Amino acid sequence: MAVSRVLTPRAVVRPIVATSVFGARRRHLQQAASSATFDYEGLYETLLHRKKQDGSYRYFKNINRHVHHYPYARTEADKRVAVWCSNDYLGMGKNPRVMQAAEEALNSYGVTAGGSRNIGGHNDQIIALENACARLHGKESALLLTSGFVANEAGLTTLGARLPGCVILSDQLNHASMIQGMRHSGAKKIIFAHNDMADLEQKLATLPRSVPKIIAFESVYSMTGSVAPIARICDLADQYGALTYADEVHAVGLYGPHGAGIAEHLDFAAHEAGQPHGTLMDRIDIVAGTLTKAYGAYGGYLAASARTIDVVRSLSPSFIFTTALPPMVLAAGRAAVEEQMNTMADRRALALKTRQVKHALAAVGLPVIANTSHIIPLLIGDAELTRAASEMLLRDYQIYIQPINYPTVPVGEERLRVVPTTDHTEQITAELVHALQAVWTRLGLKDRHAWAREAEQRHPLMDPALEVEDLWTDEQLGIRAQDPFLYGQESELEPLRASA
Amino acid sequence: MAVSRVLTPRAVVRPIVATSVFGARRRHLQQAASSATFDYEGLYETLLHRKKQDGSYRYFKNINRHVHHYPYARTEADKRVAVWCSNDYLGMGKNPRVMQAAEEALNSYGVTAGGSRNIGGHNDQIIALENACARLHGKESALLLTSGFVANEAGLTTLGARLPGCVILSDQLNHASMIQGMRHSGAKKIIFAHNDMADLEQKLATLPRSVPKIIAFESVYSMTGSVAPIARICDLADQYGALTYADEVHAVGLYGPHGAGIAEHLDFAAHEAGQPHGTLMDRIDIVAGTLTKAYGAYGGYLAASARTIDVVRSLSPSFIFTTALPPMVLAAGRAAVEEQMNTMADRRALALKTRQVKHALAAVGLPVIANTSHIIPLLIGDAELTRAASEMLLRDYQIYIQPINYPTVPVGEERLRVVPTTDHTEQITAELVHALQAVWTRLGLKDRHAWAREAEQRHPLMDPALEVEDLWTDEQLGIRAQDPFLYGQESELEPLRASA
Repeated sequence: MAVSRVLTPRAVVRPIVATSVFGARRRHLQQAASSATFDYEGLYETLLHRKKQDGSYRYFKNINRHVHHYPYARTEADKRVAVWCSNDYLGMGKNPRVMQAAEEALNSYGVTAGGSRNIGGHNDQIIALENACARLHGKESALLLTSGFVANEAGLTTLGARLPGCVILSDQLNHASMIQGMRHSGAKKIIFAHNDMADLEQKLATLPRSVPKIIAFESVYSMTGSVAPIARICDLADQYGALTYADEVHAVGLYGPHGAGIAEHLDFAAHEAGQPHGTLMDRIDIVAGTLTKAYGAYGGYLAASARTIDVVRSLSPSFIFTTALPPMVLAAGRAAVEEQMNTMADRRALALKTRQVKHALAAVGLPVIANTSHIIPLLIGDAELTRAASEMLLRDYQIYIQPINYPTVPVGEERLRVVPTTDHTEQITAELVHALQAVWTRLGLKDRHAWAREAEQRHPLMDPALEVEDLWTDEQLGIRAQDPFLYGQESELEPLRASA
Repeated sequence: MAVSRVLTPRAVVRPIVATSVFGARRRHLQQAASSATFDYEGLYETLLHRKKQDGSYRYFKNINRHVHHYPYARTEADKRVAVWCSNDYLGMGKNPRVMQAAEEALNSYGVTAGGSRNIGGHNDQIIALENACARLHGKESALLLTSGFVANEAGLTTLGARLPGCVILSDQLNHASMIQGMRHSGAKKIIFAHNDMADLEQKLATLPRSVPKIIAFESVYSMTGSVAPIARICDLADQYGALTYADEVHAVGLYGPHGAGIAEHLDFAAHEAGQPHGTLMDRIDIVAGTLTKAYGAYGGYLAASARTIDVVRSLSPSFIFTTALPPMVLAAGRAAVEEQMNTMADRRALALKTRQVKHALAAVGLPVIANTSHIIPLLIGDAELTRAASEMLLRDYQIYIQPINYPTVPVGEERLRVVPTTDHTEQITAELVHALQAVWTRLGLKDRHAWAREAEQRHPLMDPALEVEDLWTDEQLGIRAQDPFLYGQESELEPLRASA
């Protein structure tokens, strides 16, 4: 019978029979006999030992957030800790509308997208999210990638490799994902000093105008909180015929009248009035964003001209050959983007909270590295002491702040990176200030004044005489400068300052 | 007052004022004046035009799955189509327990993990999932990465770069993610002919035994359905002192008594008896898997020795500098892995369904490329005809099968890739066979016999005399070979066969 013949075991295409047990035995004999085989495990041990020796080995902390208790979380030992280093700046990961969007998509579509964008993974959810991202940045198109890391890797690799003879001018503090993208592109990379426009111009001037070039930078640098001089970068790009590539991952959702980031924020009035033409946002050629941080969801994106996006879409293996994100993740991201396009309340609340925390820390002499953004780095300057401070905060004060050591920051610049969110109350903030003061005293760490005295050249941003503006003006925040609301309850802060 | 001084606008660190409108105007003038600026948009247009010319430009189809109607989906025009090219092989993306796990995690943790693994993104959910993946493959450790693509990229880049003088021997059909990982590692790559062990051995023999080397292969190749000769690969690895790196992404959840993939399946009895020692699974050094396909969730992983995993964890930028996946995605993945570890019912159902579909297609003379796995490629051999067949299926028969053209397969090997799932009923299968027959007739495509006659050398797998075994034996499926259940209802298939 024709039917049963197909299954008759006289096949010529057949599964390979395992001879594994004998093979394994042979391997053991061979390993004993031959000393010439490379010692893989020995090399791994050496690599790991080296990282433990230089203090860069990472020990992960088990931190379990909870919707109803954020910014508190549970540790492995079920101890409650206050998280002060989350990128969920606006608490959007637990926002009811964002969660509802995720749940509805889950109940409609199930968990998986089922395939790559080209094979069944392209759907209403992803199209709507890409449209929202393009609209947010005033660009023709946007492309969703599986993470912000992949967005930078795919964007810079593709452009750097496809633009013939491309040179990428890269800010010295650019994120690992941008560095990886540049490296993989094979393009020539020229590093300019962090935010140093004279250095950038000098390097641009060495290149023929006809050579394709990309100025790659971040709008807010996540470990320093420093903000790029975007207008000057755009001017130089115009002058020397370069593309501008701005990573706004730590700024989207947090700045600008619609949450599009620093570029939008710097032309606040124009964007509030719906007049984007000629603005910085308009002048940036490629923007990289994320749904993962302020938007509280997951995924990265690029927004740019339709052709730029189509080139990455058509030529990046990192985009083409990977499964699309789950619809529930896309729905959450879109709900967050759209919610933040329609209200400034959360952004304003974070800006006010940031002022309050910066003020409270500086008032007790803690070494806040000055910047105009929402990231609050506290300088320690030693890897072991930074780790010890973090451990002490967690163990004795139930506060979680991950130490930031080399290679994330240079040796000597080790720090705690304090990140306020809209969910950190006055009380939680007061507890933070108190705990940090105690840790500084117990470990004998340098305060703001000591840094200013001892290392004036290295840390001009620690000068106590320095006064710092904020990206958000009082007017944008809708407040008067004298409003006591900014600084929390003075009665709470006073005793802390006294004990400094 | 000290407090208000901090906000006085005499700051030296201040946001950069936008000069953008003038800059934009200047740019327009410059672009008119200088012809020497590189024409970025012009190059993009050329690149895209080239892809449209060679037929490799991708047009995405809008396909919306629905929990209650899978494998049917809705197109943009709200037309119902049967999806025959999804990687959600077992329908786990809509499995109630998997969805419930996602929903519970969403309601507990919210959407986002809030940070990288090192900064707040390490939690109970991710630890449990990694433990499950390690246990599944009988390895000491596992590491979750943001996708299967990133898992291969991170694994091969890290090992290839860190093993001094490493040579990677790579199967010719390896996936783009493995190719990207090898390229980025900087290691020397030697390609061996697909599944050709004589070629692999010849190439291994040219290398000194002391040189670190990796044999990188897939267990099931997604576009051909061919299965690697894993036992022979492990033997060669032992003989020549190489590591084995197996990508099991199209096999996990689908093969073996616990769903660990082809390596487990090939020692079925040993693993069913809980005796993994010396098995192929035990002999594979590094396995790459995914939660995205058969497990219906999202994310990729590596499983290996504790030190191997710690090296990737400690040294791969793609792992270190990216946000952890959302807890709801992790919970879904773990529920799927654990469910599939505890039952063979879904895997057996898919194996039976595969037999049934292969039989039905072959019975009417459709050119099924022979293999022993669950993937059913139909050879067309021309890019335009493959696209036309796919379009006709969608438009006239409400069946979605994405065309597979160059560069995913070689020119002349263009195909439709039919993927049965456990949700494809007898009726849907009968409709598929009917539609494919009609399309083959209308477009004048070559049937199985024509391929065998015309191109015997190029397509030995199309020989009608060829009989093909299945990775799943009748015994493993718990059936007798004569069982009519295997082939669907003969009464339905008969007329289709007659009309061939």
